[in-house]
Amino acid sequence: MATPIDFYFDFSSPYGYFAAAKIDEIAARHKRGVNWRPFLLGAVFKITKMQPLVDYPLKGDYMKRDWQRFARLVGVKFKPPEVFPFSALTASRLFYWLNTKDPELARKFAKAVYQAAFGEGRDIAAIGALTAIGEPLGIAAGDMVAASNDQAIKDLLRQEIDAAIARGVFGSPFVVVDGEPFWGADRLDQVDGWLATGGW
Amino acid sequence: MATPIDFYFDFSSPYGYFAAAKIDEIAARHKRGVNWRPFLLGAVFKITKMQPLVDYPLKGDYMKRDWQRFARLVGVKFKPPEVFPFSALTASRLFYWLNTKDPELARKFAKAVYQAAFGEGRDIAAIGALTAIGEPLGIAAGDMVAASNDQAIKDLLRQEIDAAIARGVFGSPFVVVDGEPFWGADRLDQVDGWLATGGW
Repeated sequence: MATPIDFYFDFSSPYGYFAAAKIDEIAARHKRGVNWRPFLLGAVFKITKMQPLVDYPLKGDYMKRDWQRFARLVGVKFKPPEVFPFSALTASRLFYWLNTKDPELARKFAKAVYQAAFGEGRDIAAIGALTAIGEPLGIAAGDMVAASNDQAIKDLLRQEIDAAIARGVFGSPFVVVDGEPFWGADRLDQVDGWLATGGW
Repeated sequence: MATPIDFYFDFSSPYGYFAAAKIDEIAARHKRGVNWRPFLLGAVFKITKMQPLVDYPLKGDYMKRDWQRFARLVGVKFKPPEVFPFSALTASRLFYWLNTKDPELARKFAKAVYQAAFGEGRDIAAIGALTAIGEPLGIAAGDMVAASNDQAIKDLLRQEIDAAIARGVFGSPFVVVDGEPFWGADRLDQVDGWLATGGW
C-alpha cells in the first residue's frame, strides 16, 4: 500500500465532519490509508489572523445555510451544536493518546465524537461528554480522565499542531496527498482526482 | 428559457476568472442564461471585516499554489498579475455602462478583461489598459473614457454593489440559482447539480 494521505481536521469544524464521512472511502478506492490528524483552529487563527467562520458578517449566514445543504449532499445527519464554536482541546488530546496505542480505535473515537457533536448537536467540550462517547467503544473513563491531564499527551497535541502549521495547514478539513495540499470539504473531488491520476 | 442565474465576480479575483471560463457553458447545459454582475470585494470586505486572500499567512501561500493548479484543471492559461490585488473599479464601471446598451458585448468585454489580467498577467487597473482591451471589440476609446467618468455610471456600479451585499454576496465568484447561493469556483459542480435537479 502506498503512502497514507494526511487528513487534518478540527473537531469543532462542520466541514471537517462532512469530510470525515468520506475520506476513508475515497482513500480506500485508491488503496491508500489515512492518517487522521486533529488540530485546533484556534491555534492556527493566531497566526493567520482569521476567526471562526460564523463570526464574519454575510459569510456566517451563508455558512449556516451551507452546512445543512452540504449535509444533505453528503448524506449525513446534521444538527448544529448549541454552543458553537466549542473547544476541541480535550477531544483532540484523547485522540492522540488513543492513537499512540491503537490508531483504529482512535479513528472510531474521532468518528463518534463528530457524530455526537454535529449529528446530534451535543456539547463535546467537557471530559464528561467525552468519557460518555468513549466508554461504549471500550475505553475506560478513568483512563480518559488521566490521559486528558497527562502532560506528555498535552505536549503531543502541541507538537502535532506545530507540525500542521509548519506544513501550511490553515483550515479544516485539510488533506495532503503526496505533498499536495487541499483545503475544504468541497475539494474532496479534487483529492479523489489527484489520487486517481497522480496530479494534473 | 427559465430565469437566468446570477454570476457575481470581482475582476481582481483569480477564482472569478476560473468560474468565468465555465459558467456560461454550465448554465447553457440547463437552458439557462447568465447575468454577469461584477462587484468590488473591497466594498464587501468593509462589511465582512475580511481582507484579500493573499494577505493571510499560510492561506495566502496555499492560494498562490492553488491558482496554478486550478487553472490547469479548468484548462485556462494563468499568469499572476504583477500588481495584485489590483483595482477593478474602472473595469466594473465600464462593464455596467456596456451592459445597459449591449449585455452580450459587456460579457465579451468582461472575458477579455479577465483574459488580460490573469491569462496574460497584464495590469488592467487604468483606463488606458481598458481602452486597449475594448477597442478590438469595437468600443471607441473616447466613449470608454467618458463612461468611466460619468456620474450616472458610477452610481449604477454603487447600486449593483449595494444590491449584491443585500443579497449576501461576500466572495468571488458567487452564483445564485433560483435564490440559492453558492460561493467559490470549487462549487460550480454543485451549481451544475442544483440546476440539474432543482435542489437537494
